[in-house]
Order: sequence, then C-alpha cells, then structure tokens
Amino acid sequence: MSTTTHTIHNFSAGPCILPPSVLQQASDAVRDLDGGGLSLIEISHRSKPFVAVMEEARDLVRSELSLPDHYEVLFLQGGASLGFLTTAMNFTPSNGSMDYAVTGTWAKKALKEARKMGTAQAITSSEDSGFNHIPDLPGASSASAVHITTNNTIYGTQYAGDPTVNKPMVADMSSDIFSRPIDIERYACIYAGAQKNMGPAGTVLYIYDKRQVGQTGRDLPSYLDLAVHADKDSMFNTPPVFAIYTSMLTLRWLKGEGGVREMQQRNAAKAACIYSEIDRNPLFNGYAALGSRSVMNATFTATDEDHTPLFLDACNAAGINGIKGHRSIGGFRASMYNALPLSSVEVLTDVMKEFERTHG
Amino acid sequence: MSTTTHTIHNFSAGPCILPPSVLQQASDAVRDLDGGGLSLIEISHRSKPFVAVMEEARDLVRSELSLPDHYEVLFLQGGASLGFLTTAMNFTPSNGSMDYAVTGTWAKKALKEARKMGTAQAITSSEDSGFNHIPDLPGASSASAVHITTNNTIYGTQYAGDPTVNKPMVADMSSDIFSRPIDIERYACIYAGAQKNMGPAGTVLYIYDKRQVGQTGRDLPSYLDLAVHADKDSMFNTPPVFAIYTSMLTLRWLKGEGGVREMQQRNAAKAACIYSEIDRNPLFNGYAALGSRSVMNATFTATDEDHTPLFLDACNAAGINGIKGHRSIGGFRASMYNALPLSSVEVLTDVMKEFERTHG
Repeated sequence: MSTTTHTIHNFSAGPCILPPSVLQQASDAVRDLDGGGLSLIEISHRSKPFVAVMEEARDLVRSELSLPDHYEVLFLQGGASLGFLTTAMNFTPSNGSMDYAVTGTWAKKALKEARKMGTAQAITSSEDSGFNHIPDLPGASSASAVHITTNNTIYGTQYAGDPTVNKPMVADMSSDIFSRPIDIERYACIYAGAQKNMGPAGTVLYIYDKRQVGQTGRDLPSYLDLAVHADKDSMFNTPPVFAIYTSMLTLRWLKGEGGVREMQQRNAAKAACIYSEIDRNPLFNGYAALGSRSVMNATFTATDEDHTPLFLDACNAAGINGIKGHRSIGGFRASMYNALPLSSVEVLTDVMKEFERTHG
Repeated sequence: MSTTTHTIHNFSAGPCILPPSVLQQASDAVRDLDGGGLSLIEISHRSKPFVAVMEEARDLVRSELSLPDHYEVLFLQGGASLGFLTTAMNFTPSNGSMDYAVTGTWAKKALKEARKMGTAQAITSSEDSGFNHIPDLPGASSASAVHITTNNTIYGTQYAGDPTVNKPMVADMSSDIFSRPIDIERYACIYAGAQKNMGPAGTVLYIYDKRQVGQTGRDLPSYLDLAVHADKDSMFNTPPVFAIYTSMLTLRWLKGEGGVREMQQRNAAKAACIYSEIDRNPLFNGYAALGSRSVMNATFTATDEDHTPLFLDACNAAGINGIKGHRSIGGFRASMYNALPLSSVEVLTDVMKEFERTHG
C-alpha cells in the first residue's frame, strides 16, 4: 500500500474523505467478509450476513439521530437527484403544492423536478445575490410542505439550525447530515446522498415520518414510492451492498467517536479555524455572508485574482487536495466533512499565512 | 485473509461470483487507487482518475459487444427495477404502446411499471405453465416496441438467441449480458443490473440506439431521461463509483479471457455438464422445458421431496454455496455466471452422483 496517504489533506467536496479505519474495513470486506471466505459483493443480499448489515445501518441512523418510532429509514439508489423527484411525488398531494427555498444550484434542481410532476413554487430565493446567503424563510407557507437544502456545497452557505415554518419540511441534507443534532419532528422527510458524511457514492438515505406518506392520492411508480421500499425493509430490489456496508461502517465510527454532538463540536472548531484566517488574512475574502457561513464548506477567493493559481500551487505542494472552488464562483473551497481532522485545516491555514508572508 | 476462499463454490443467483483478480483489485482500490494515496471512494467523480475509469468502462462495453457508433452506453443507478420505468418512459410514445413478453416474475414487474405511465400489454406469456418455458414470440407486433427478459433467473429459462420480431426490442439482460454475442441492431435498448456477469450491485447498464430516444413526446423527469444522462457522459449526478470501477475491472477481465465468444463456449460447457447430469440422474428432475433451458441458471428438483434438505446438506458439506432454489419453485438452482469455473460445476455433479449412490 502507498506510504503517502498520511501526507494528503483531502478537502474534496464529495465524494470526499472517509475515516481511514472505514476504508480499511471496507477494503477487507471486498476481499473477504468477516472471514466467511466470500466477498461482500458476491453474496446474496438476502443472505444473513447482508441482512444484518442493512439492519445495523438502519438502526444506527435511528439511534444516532434519535429518531422517534414513527420515522422510517431507507437506503435507496439514484442519489439526491432522483430524490428531488421522489420527495416531490411522495409529499405533494395531487391537489396540493410544495414551496421551495431556493438557496443554490441543488435547490433549483429540486424545484425543477418537482414542477415536472405537480405544483411547486419558490417561497424565497437568494439567486439575485449569487446565492451568497441563506434568505429568511417566511414563517408561514400555504403549500403542503416546504422544501429546503440545509447546506449548499457550491456557495458555502448553511442554515444555522433547523428553520421554523408552519408546515412540515422536506430537506435535502446531502452535505450536512450527521454533522449536528437535528430537531427531527420539524421534518416530514430528510434525504441525503451518502457521499459526504456517510459513505461512498451509490446510496441515498431517506428518513421520513411514516404517518405523512401515502397521502397524496397519486398512483406512484414502484421505485419512486417510499412505502413500497419500506414494506420490503429497504430491499424492494437488490440494494447497493457496498455503499450501504461502508455507510454502516462510517455510522459505527460516528457512534464510537461520540456521535453527532461530538461532530458538531469538532466541525465548529474546524470552521472557526478557517474562517478566522479568512477574515484575518488580507490576501483572501470569504464568499458567503456572515450568518450564512457553512460549517461544512468554506468558500473564499484571493483578493488579487492573479494569486489564485499560485495559491493552488502552494496548497498542492503542502499535500492539500480538492481545494479548487466550484467553477460557478471560482476561488477556493475547503470542504471539512466529519472525517476531516482539525490538523488538516491547520495545515491549510498555515499555508495561507505563509502565502501572505511570501505574496502579501 | 481467509484461507478457505478456494474451497467455496459460489452458485449464488446474484449478487454472485466475480473473478478473484477483480475482487483483489477492487479491494486494493478502496484502500489506495493506483498508488495515488487516496481511496477510490474518497476522490471526486470529476477527477481525472475517475473520469478515466468511467470512459474505460463505457468503451469496454462498446468494444466487447461490438456496438455501432449510434449506440450509447450509460452506467446509472436504481437497478433494473427502476429500468422497468425508465425504458417504458423513453421508448413508449405518448400516443403509442409497448408489447411485453411475460416470461417470469421480472417480466411481469416490467409490465406493471410500464402500465403506470402509458399503454402496455402482454404479447405472450408462459405464466399458466409456471413460467417453465419461453413462449414463442409472435413475429409481428402492432406496438412501438417489444420488451423481453432474455434470461429468467428464477425459472432457469432463456431465449436461445436474439428473437426475431418486426419491431425494435427493449431487453432486460440483467442475468445474461456478456454471456454471448448479441445482434445489437435488433434492440432499441438493452438494460442490465450489474450484479451477475458485470460487477457488484449498485449500477445498471443502459445500451441504446441514440436515434430512437427523444421520440416519445413526453416531458420526462431528468433522472429518468436517458438523453439527459448521455448529454452529461453518464455523470448527470454523482455516479456509484465503486460499482462502476469494479464493473470496469470485470470487463477488463472479460476482454483478457477472450471476450463474449469465449464466455459463450465456457458457459455452454458448464451448462452441458449440469444438464447432462440432471437428465441422467434418476434422483433429480429439470424444471425448465427442453429448448428453453438457461445457460446461466439451471433449475432442478429432487424426485423424492424428502431428499431436498439432504441434498442441500451434501452440497453444503462440499463447499457449494447458494444452490437453494428460489422460493417460488423450490428445489435447487445452480447459477453459473461467467466467473464460475467449470470445475465448480464438476464438483456439483460429483455431489449429485455421490448422492445417487448413497440415496438412490
């Protein structure tokens, strides 16, 4: 195996860093699952070992997010992109509508898919200001539910907590689930692609209030009907076994590290480290407005645009990976998901300080 | 690592046996992709290494199936179960219909999903005889396309070759793709879940004639629109990187072994071995009708039902795994996908012979 692993600081926006112990165990299971002589990926998904994996993964989601019994947990496929359609189909009554808080590219895409199958509209938007902040969510909606995107990876903005609105919320939490405790009862449904805080790309988590599905009056296609999947214990069809197994390992790790409260503290410490340097260092500017800054993705630019490639070179030389900003806003993005250690953020801020010394 | 791997003969119906070299390489990549110091599953899907993986996987499908340039290749999510809906949506004009050859459980499910979004009907069915044979496909259909399921894993039946009909076919080839050459021009679309001959569960392959999509007059949801995925080179959203990488490895292995013509010969040899023993041995009966027998899944029962658990015990003692028949028809099922060596089938037929000697 490579001896360089420890020198890479992985700030990728997703797929992204996972705990080294999880990668090791996932790798082992692809060779031989628990010493049974067969690979994780060549056994039946209905075999006892895999059924146990699926149950443990679902149970860990329940315990780590303190879900009440009336919430269901599913691991499906298609990512949050198919989730845009699935959630709209399952939570918009055929004679009702859904409100969308448009806080970035992904929220816009969610609204676009919802409009293909029913009535949906923007209740608020920050598009006119380049999605650089989270606009206030009106407290009252006349729709059946309100859809939010809790963290916006591209722009580095995030709701500071669980918003308050007079209707059940449907939330795309792909990029900040398990980063902090949530007030679950505010949500009819939470969905999240695995490839940030939970595991590899290839599975999407749905958490929803069982009492609020099956109420739309629609005859849904089977794969897009959450109740169909729940009825089969998340095994309506062959599940993506590797992605679910690795997510289960990450959830075990999360639990072992102290759970979402511990992650919240660690993430706050990492965010404080990077944002204080962005604010202090005259060579850099933060992109997201104060009050809307994401704990998961810090976006910033070089004050002098000519510095952009030079700073990327400096990061590269320090083993910092994945720091280039999304093409929509340019500059830099430091994604600091649960598995990223504070020490990696400190390496980055050291490079920023050194860059100020040499280029300031 | 386990030292028992070599003694297990994996006849699982899917997820199923994969080449040992593929499992080894996939395991290594989860730890460190090509010595780059990062895991396959923690790098961006838009990074050069993964874009290269996706392109190689798609190119290998093209070369190994000798696809003309007007066929597109995509690796998506949702399995064939979402494919039932996706293919119906993409190939049934809003004022047209699709014919379905109902040859088993999966074909029935495909028809059910198609009916949720348009006009679809059975053109033929073998349900009345327990799906024990492939009924003749009428040569003429008045629908826009004809859907077939080329191999029926549960019942152990398979079309002997590419059927002839006067309309483009849409084929679920989940359980026999890459087992033999195909006459691609007969098909508007082929789709296949990866977890038999191609790789782990978690991705589904679509191959389709680009000239025949976008003709339905429907405004499709983005994830269910094949043209949307093609426009983004199969990266409309984050792809299931591990499943695609491992599928690419299996396709490399396939090519190295001699391709689909070589697989066809090996599979014929394995099928001849098991079926000759089923026909010779008075303690067993074949389930599928002669002429409809599957090269991939041999289904058979014990002449004396009391022998069923005893024979399963004998298989277990010989390291034979996954031989229990599907609950719908009971008995036994020997799934002999590409990666299963003839030697494993010989171990099974030896156990059958020994069982005759001890229980006959």
